[in-house]
Amino acid sequence: MPHFLTTLAADFETRFTALLGMKREDSPDVDAAVGQIIADVRARGDVAVLELTAKFDRLELTPETMRFSDAEIEAEIARVPQAEREALELAAERIRIYHARQMPPNAMWEEESGAKLGWRFTPVSAAGLYVPGGLASYPSSVLMNAIPAKVAGVERLVVVCPTPDGKVNPLVLLAARIAGVDEIYRIGGAQAVAALAYGTDTIRPVDKITGPGNAFVAAAKRRVFGKVGIDMIAGPSEILVIADGQNDPDWIALDLLSQAEHDASAQSILITPDEGFANKVVEAVEKRLETLERREIAGASWRDFGAVILTRDLAEAAELSNRVAPEHLELCVADPEALAQEITHAGAIFMGAWTPEAIGDYIGGPNHVLPTARSARFSSGLSVFDFVKRTTLSMMTPEALRQIGPGAEVLAKSESLEAHGLSVRARLDALNK
Amino acid sequence: MPHFLTTLAADFETRFTALLGMKREDSPDVDAAVGQIIADVRARGDVAVLELTAKFDRLELTPETMRFSDAEIEAEIARVPQAEREALELAAERIRIYHARQMPPNAMWEEESGAKLGWRFTPVSAAGLYVPGGLASYPSSVLMNAIPAKVAGVERLVVVCPTPDGKVNPLVLLAARIAGVDEIYRIGGAQAVAALAYGTDTIRPVDKITGPGNAFVAAAKRRVFGKVGIDMIAGPSEILVIADGQNDPDWIALDLLSQAEHDASAQSILITPDEGFANKVVEAVEKRLETLERREIAGASWRDFGAVILTRDLAEAAELSNRVAPEHLELCVADPEALAQEITHAGAIFMGAWTPEAIGDYIGGPNHVLPTARSARFSSGLSVFDFVKRTTLSMMTPEALRQIGPGAEVLAKSESLEAHGLSVRARLDALNK
Repeated sequence: MPHFLTTLAADFETRFTALLGMKREDSPDVDAAVGQIIADVRARGDVAVLELTAKFDRLELTPETMRFSDAEIEAEIARVPQAEREALELAAERIRIYHARQMPPNAMWEEESGAKLGWRFTPVSAAGLYVPGGLASYPSSVLMNAIPAKVAGVERLVVVCPTPDGKVNPLVLLAARIAGVDEIYRIGGAQAVAALAYGTDTIRPVDKITGPGNAFVAAAKRRVFGKVGIDMIAGPSEILVIADGQNDPDWIALDLLSQAEHDASAQSILITPDEGFANKVVEAVEKRLETLERREIAGASWRDFGAVILTRDLAEAAELSNRVAPEHLELCVADPEALAQEITHAGAIFMGAWTPEAIGDYIGGPNHVLPTARSARFSSGLSVFDFVKRTTLSMMTPEALRQIGPGAEVLAKSESLEAHGLSVRARLDALNK
Repeated sequence: MPHFLTTLAADFETRFTALLGMKREDSPDVDAAVGQIIADVRARGDVAVLELTAKFDRLELTPETMRFSDAEIEAEIARVPQAEREALELAAERIRIYHARQMPPNAMWEEESGAKLGWRFTPVSAAGLYVPGGLASYPSSVLMNAIPAKVAGVERLVVVCPTPDGKVNPLVLLAARIAGVDEIYRIGGAQAVAALAYGTDTIRPVDKITGPGNAFVAAAKRRVFGKVGIDMIAGPSEILVIADGQNDPDWIALDLLSQAEHDASAQSILITPDEGFANKVVEAVEKRLETLERREIAGASWRDFGAVILTRDLAEAAELSNRVAPEHLELCVADPEALAQEITHAGAIFMGAWTPEAIGDYIGGPNHVLPTARSARFSSGLSVFDFVKRTTLSMMTPEALRQIGPGAEVLAKSESLEAHGLSVRARLDALNK
């Protein structure tokens, strides 16, 4: 049974705070080991990467075979069935259209003094994308990471993806090909992150690294942050569903389970003002759990971290959701657009019963890389913004300097930064001559 | 003497690469000590903060006196001379106007199927701003951090600023007042960062922490990242000036020194195709160093990390600048707007000889918190974007689900995520009934 809370209960605040503070992830401390791996790759380059790949992935490579050749990629993707190829292409097209709208505009304006101010966006030159191997090797994640980079104008986009025992996921290669990835290497773990950040003889360094990974990959990303940019470090997935009583309980049950099946540490929360409906959803979850392929994982997640919260009304539901700041939020209510206006913190909102969150995971268009662990309070999902940076622009005129230069001089003096003040004063003196 | 390079030399590439890789900062390893301070503040709250303030700042406070009262703030800022007050107000106004233009627009559009897609920006609810005490207590930094937050719509903006031995900088309080800061606490160090991130009885927690600080503050920000958002961890400041021979050597010398005087680890680089001009600038720097108040710091920076690079032409200068990815870039050339088009990586560009970088530090309008240590390759200066987050929006219709639902189902199956596929299938089946 999931946690069951009602806002009418005297101990609600205590229990809700406990739910918010619940520690769901117990990541092993691999930081010291990762530090050694990074130091090794920095010192020995390709040799270290190849040794570590032999050790962890049981795969003997050479500098020449580290990278997938075009012929290998073609041979692998030829094995992908037509239905999956078409689905990936449709998804890619929709993700591309959505993200193309995100491209932020440059700006430049002129003040009365003739001074010009503005900014310009430029793409990151080279980006690396980590793609996990094995079970969590998701072609959809390749699209979600690679397409925003290419839309932003990243010239060189590199994928690293481990192939333990040489096992390759052809869908990952196809997704990379569709998204326009330029280089694909069959390496993974902290050694792949280090190779991307510092470069080796075979792999030129990149400027930014994104993509999900295990504890080693997360620790390596944290360590190379600063040398290169990184995206967020994702935690276990979450969904919060606000539903009124007019929904099909089985649909809502499946939406809750579609997060729970990701990971035993995932969290699925239903908030509803309708107690009878809540009970029906719980029953529907139990029934689906009898047959679901990943019932062990989904069942553990639902039992340990799942929650059902009864509220007085939908407004109260929105307030509680804002305190959770969920990664995914479904609004299965009569007027979801109105309720969405009350939402202040959420990674993504799925409005109405015809928008199961799985649509957003694959094919809706918005990104599925979203802030977890309540970080939607201060951060956003992956986007084109992660692959561009902004340069501010200023161009003064003599008249502008005459107007605002003295103020800068006063402030420089007040901060005891004499040369700052003098650099303005020397110009003002030339104007006054 | 600064480093002297010319692109015509056979060993140029080696020397330039060495210049790029030069380690300028030797930060002490305070991470373990910071870990203990954070744990202490989490466990004992106010009591720990007060004890640590007594120890590090030699200041006995109580929960009541930790926060500046309105009366204290009024009394302190009454001491600020009129000229400084007016300069701060002018700067604030210009910074506000520039950043107001950054507010990103929301978007929502409808597809042919009736599906709606888009996104919405919402502000971070509460932000904390670290302001160093002592020498590096810069009122200009208060404006640069606080104004973008308030423009973004942050409701609760908190400043922490240590006051060692009780010494207060009235300009910092005035800047905070002008910028609309809501609460000011006289605490600092890792204990202040921990209090902002985790909260105490007196200080409610915030969602995002920005602002510069010493090694303890930087380590604390790294550690609380994830629990709250943080801005970048800034390194020592840098300027790169591209100048033709038609400049006043003294102006350029002062611009180089205005970075060098910040910190012995700062770096000032001149790139010019004109050797005669380069020599004149070096002479002018030496002459100014004879009398400059901060000549010891500026001299050490110029001697250890300063560089003059001779190029064949301005195009080559731009290429080298892009490899440096400087925090501040001055283009003191005849057509700076044209040369700016060649710049792909820089935190801020100052165009033309009438735009000394000090204008941007104080009063131009753009932010002076900019990416250091070559991180302009992948990151941007502080802006309104740091205080908002984006929620993606999706709303399908039965027709939209009919069109794209089957693709999502195919992809879910290919990733062995059955419940994802079933959540779509259950709805498609209802449509087909």
